[in-house]
Amino acid sequence: MTDYASWRSLGQQLRVDSIRASSAAGSGHPTSAMSAADLMAVLLAKYLHYDFAAPKNPHNDHLIFSKGHASPLLYAMYRAAGAISDDELLSYRKRGSRLEGHPTPALPWVDVATGSLGQGLPIGVGVALAGKRLDRLPYRVWVLTGDSELAEGSMWEAFEHASHEDLDNLTAVLDINRLGQRGETMHGWDLDYFDRRLKAIGWHTIEIDGHDVAQIDAAFAEGVSTKGKPAAVIARTIKGKGVAAVADKNGFHGKAIEDADAAIRELGGRPDVSIVVAKPTNDGAPHRFETRPSLELPRYDRGAKEATRKAYGDALAALGAARGDVVVLDGEVSNSTYAEVFAKQTPDRYFEMYIAEQQMAAAAVGMQVRGWKPFASSFAAFWSRAYDFIRMAAVSRANIRICGSHAGVSIGEDGPSQMALEDLAAFRAVWSSTVLYPSDANQTAKLVARMADLDGIVYLRTTREKTPVIYSPDEEFLIGGSRVLRRTAADAVTIVGAGITVHEALKAADRLSEDGIAARVIDLFSVKPIDRATLLEAAADTGAIITVEDHWPEGGLGEAVLSVFGDADEQPRVMKLAVRALPGSATPAQQLADARIDAAAIVDAARALAVYRPSGASLTR
Amino acid sequence: MTDYASWRSLGQQLRVDSIRASSAAGSGHPTSAMSAADLMAVLLAKYLHYDFAAPKNPHNDHLIFSKGHASPLLYAMYRAAGAISDDELLSYRKRGSRLEGHPTPALPWVDVATGSLGQGLPIGVGVALAGKRLDRLPYRVWVLTGDSELAEGSMWEAFEHASHEDLDNLTAVLDINRLGQRGETMHGWDLDYFDRRLKAIGWHTIEIDGHDVAQIDAAFAEGVSTKGKPAAVIARTIKGKGVAAVADKNGFHGKAIEDADAAIRELGGRPDVSIVVAKPTNDGAPHRFETRPSLELPRYDRGAKEATRKAYGDALAALGAARGDVVVLDGEVSNSTYAEVFAKQTPDRYFEMYIAEQQMAAAAVGMQVRGWKPFASSFAAFWSRAYDFIRMAAVSRANIRICGSHAGVSIGEDGPSQMALEDLAAFRAVWSSTVLYPSDANQTAKLVARMADLDGIVYLRTTREKTPVIYSPDEEFLIGGSRVLRRTAADAVTIVGAGITVHEALKAADRLSEDGIAARVIDLFSVKPIDRATLLEAAADTGAIITVEDHWPEGGLGEAVLSVFGDADEQPRVMKLAVRALPGSATPAQQLADARIDAAAIVDAARALAVYRPSGASLTR
Repeated sequence: MTDYASWRSLGQQLRVDSIRASSAAGSGHPTSAMSAADLMAVLLAKYLHYDFAAPKNPHNDHLIFSKGHASPLLYAMYRAAGAISDDELLSYRKRGSRLEGHPTPALPWVDVATGSLGQGLPIGVGVALAGKRLDRLPYRVWVLTGDSELAEGSMWEAFEHASHEDLDNLTAVLDINRLGQRGETMHGWDLDYFDRRLKAIGWHTIEIDGHDVAQIDAAFAEGVSTKGKPAAVIARTIKGKGVAAVADKNGFHGKAIEDADAAIRELGGRPDVSIVVAKPTNDGAPHRFETRPSLELPRYDRGAKEATRKAYGDALAALGAARGDVVVLDGEVSNSTYAEVFAKQTPDRYFEMYIAEQQMAAAAVGMQVRGWKPFASSFAAFWSRAYDFIRMAAVSRANIRICGSHAGVSIGEDGPSQMALEDLAAFRAVWSSTVLYPSDANQTAKLVARMADLDGIVYLRTTREKTPVIYSPDEEFLIGGSRVLRRTAADAVTIVGAGITVHEALKAADRLSEDGIAARVIDLFSVKPIDRATLLEAAADTGAIITVEDHWPEGGLGEAVLSVFGDADEQPRVMKLAVRALPGSATPAQQLADARIDAAAIVDAARALAVYRPSGASLTR
Repeated sequence: MTDYASWRSLGQQLRVDSIRASSAAGSGHPTSAMSAADLMAVLLAKYLHYDFAAPKNPHNDHLIFSKGHASPLLYAMYRAAGAISDDELLSYRKRGSRLEGHPTPALPWVDVATGSLGQGLPIGVGVALAGKRLDRLPYRVWVLTGDSELAEGSMWEAFEHASHEDLDNLTAVLDINRLGQRGETMHGWDLDYFDRRLKAIGWHTIEIDGHDVAQIDAAFAEGVSTKGKPAAVIARTIKGKGVAAVADKNGFHGKAIEDADAAIRELGGRPDVSIVVAKPTNDGAPHRFETRPSLELPRYDRGAKEATRKAYGDALAALGAARGDVVVLDGEVSNSTYAEVFAKQTPDRYFEMYIAEQQMAAAAVGMQVRGWKPFASSFAAFWSRAYDFIRMAAVSRANIRICGSHAGVSIGEDGPSQMALEDLAAFRAVWSSTVLYPSDANQTAKLVARMADLDGIVYLRTTREKTPVIYSPDEEFLIGGSRVLRRTAADAVTIVGAGITVHEALKAADRLSEDGIAARVIDLFSVKPIDRATLLEAAADTGAIITVEDHWPEGGLGEAVLSVFGDADEQPRVMKLAVRALPGSATPAQQLADARIDAAAIVDAARALAVYRPSGASLTR
């Protein structure tokens, strides 16, 4: 079907509706919508295969607006497709509306939130990877990008990965409208520049006039028929196209059009085009991976030593054997995070993301769009590289699992560039997050198994060094729980640790005990959510708490504990031991000592608190 | 001078010393050092102009190891140049040594810390920008990159910006040794791939055998003589070159060589080459920008309304007029952050970084290497994109100033993708950081002026909405201070806000006062460092504290306040008001109300605390 006239008419309607919606809202980005309207008109009318009545249909194509600020265009498409009413279109940006300023999955047809530029394409790569290697279905991923966002390195990670993975099920539509928020982009209408760069990476490229529906039609057809590589339609467009007062003019980014009625008249009034969007053919079922019947987690002997990072890899491999929906990504450090244990056993569901943490986070988000359960790992320090992607994953209501290894000063000689000392703060401050920090191998294995079915952003912090196995492989660990490792009726102080500091806390308790000071020890493996009841009880019993963390003093374990007590009926005294000086290189033991988070420092702190109680108060649990 | 034999000999010595240092340490990355040894030998012997006795000499070249894990090579170069002794070389990675696992400015010849891959080149772009546009001196920036790190998008931001800015004072040396940490890179020895990509971006490229000193010599000469564009030497190298047991073999990344003595014998034993590194010519002085004699900050009338973001721009322009060392960067949102006020007035010292926040942070770090005082701005939410760069900037002991605008739900309709709700947590948890969050325009102006001379990572959070001007333009605001805005002898509760919530706190105090409840109000504009004394006094006086923040509950204002009290002699009850549910679109007032951080919510919290004290206790200040 090549109905140029109706496509043009649809394009104008998408413009008109973008103007109407943003004018009703008094804000929004109509001009950024108008540049891509013809591109999206042809897509909607002819190329997109999507069942709006069944957004979870596995055969649906995926359309991601990487330039999320063009949201009025997306919503205008929904109206043209009959998915939303005109009234709802005009609720854009109003309190309670699903039509937010930038798209979010509050709308069932939106896979992921966009609006932080440079993320839609990397996420699209993740969906396309799921289509190729996991679902093994022929759905297509369409990504509309802006040109300003092509300055984000993450876009070039995505271009490279798409080519490296031969993602011919991905079509990127580059809306080159020349103008950014405050002026011209670096390359203006130099389409050849982008063409050269993309060709150099191995993409098939097609340069067109993005307002010529015949050229758009031909380009999409060429993109769809391209085999073995992804295709990019590089479209020269005009920002604000169709309305002379704003077209190709600077100064109108992110503003409703002043005289909307005149603009609509100039666009030819309000056509009323309805589109019956083609549904997918629904051929075949998503691929399912074979698994063995039951989960057999690794078991470690008490008293032995093992690194929690190793337990992560072992448990992940076990989980992958039992569950076909578990998939694993790693950023070229799988021999350090031990994701390699999974990779060797289950190569079909392992994704090597190289040193591209933003693309790795985005790919995980893309895969969970299709219901897969991604676990992604790198050094904890390097997850800071993907923090914006993790923040936005929460806005996407994404369910992803992240493992950060080599946390804290206890990594030793490698020095501060490799030490995560802010990751607990960063991950705690993500909406929907769970933050776990196990202290031994058996606990790690149990938590990894639980992570698979947790919603939201789930973070697991692992340790480089081998630590004593202190729990039985048969113990269970609940999210939001903790373990009281030392407890007597005479406890005079409580030491709260997690991960590596649990072992320092135990050593300290032993030494304090020799002095006649009974110390309660709590393993706070679930930093968020936090075990309020156990902490409140410890506060009531001992009145004094020492928190110990291999992390800066801000936003980590100590402040998580303080937040429990702030609002409680009674507040204990809380002394926070944390890393305060910038470390250099040293052995792990030296680092813990120098940072004053080792057993000796805990003993000193407990003595300073000077709350030795010679006889135990009765405990009421 | 083309002394091939001595260069080869120096290359072998650099290998031998890399092996010796890492073997003495028992860890490190000798094989990653060995691939680049010949490249660095020729650089040191012929091309680098550097006065090791005067590392702050403005005429010195700059050498940045973007592949920071090749640190033993860098230290071996220092020994060959006579900058460190052999004994110090062998202190590598030991406690107290300046020779850390990855380079840091603990050594005076190291400009910036590296070791988080993908950062050295973007920082090098910043130094080169300083050379071209600020210092206006002919020093050259040499950056040694790995090949694994070429998968980081940030590297491609750097390649693009270097070309866009015509940085012919920058030479990138790409050490393509084919092997990453756990296996082959995406492109192995496909040098043509990188050549195509760099040419497409506008770089001059030279492909060579990275172990042929004649080719290296010719390539560096060509790079140095390239005008109008940056040059890349793309060198095919062998990881572990010269030692058969490890050369071009997988599995030896980041490990000391097992039989070091045999390896050294295989390399021809220990030559003892000393290099007299050429000093710079010291021609000319660094450019200095003209300024007017005194700082005239903008002044806003009390009772008027102005956005703190606008005051940021106004103050920055004033600061720039008075100080020639202040430079400004922005990520293509200068009309929102109001960095444009500076840009229009002082285009020579304004750097448009487009939508590339990682490159922006890195450029700021690069410019401060040369003593400039960078202020960099974007939406606060998008600084999360550069979090790893900010973390590493702290390790670099960098002094940079970051402004994040449009913080919190109070931005209104744009929705959660544009709302920073984790930035206080993220920036508090950075070593050396200062976190400021002004509530009015005059306060903002005063703080911006103070920022110029603050060390470390200084973060200023600004607000989109116009807020009442509550301070006189003559008031001073100290870093680490606060302002008590309401205070009576009968205060029964303390409300602590910052930024936009200060105004809600004042409204709440007025309403509570009508009920006969006296509330102290504290403007905690300095979130880090924090005004302990004022908070402790308020706690002693009122016993109950409400914190109110436009931020998630974790790691922000509330937890900063809790950390003051944890360890105090007495702990007040602290109720934390913060954003808890994921926002959508709504007006700013609706957002504050829905998040329960508006005046009404504060009033409710104060009443719930139910600590009305009919008569005032005497205050002891």
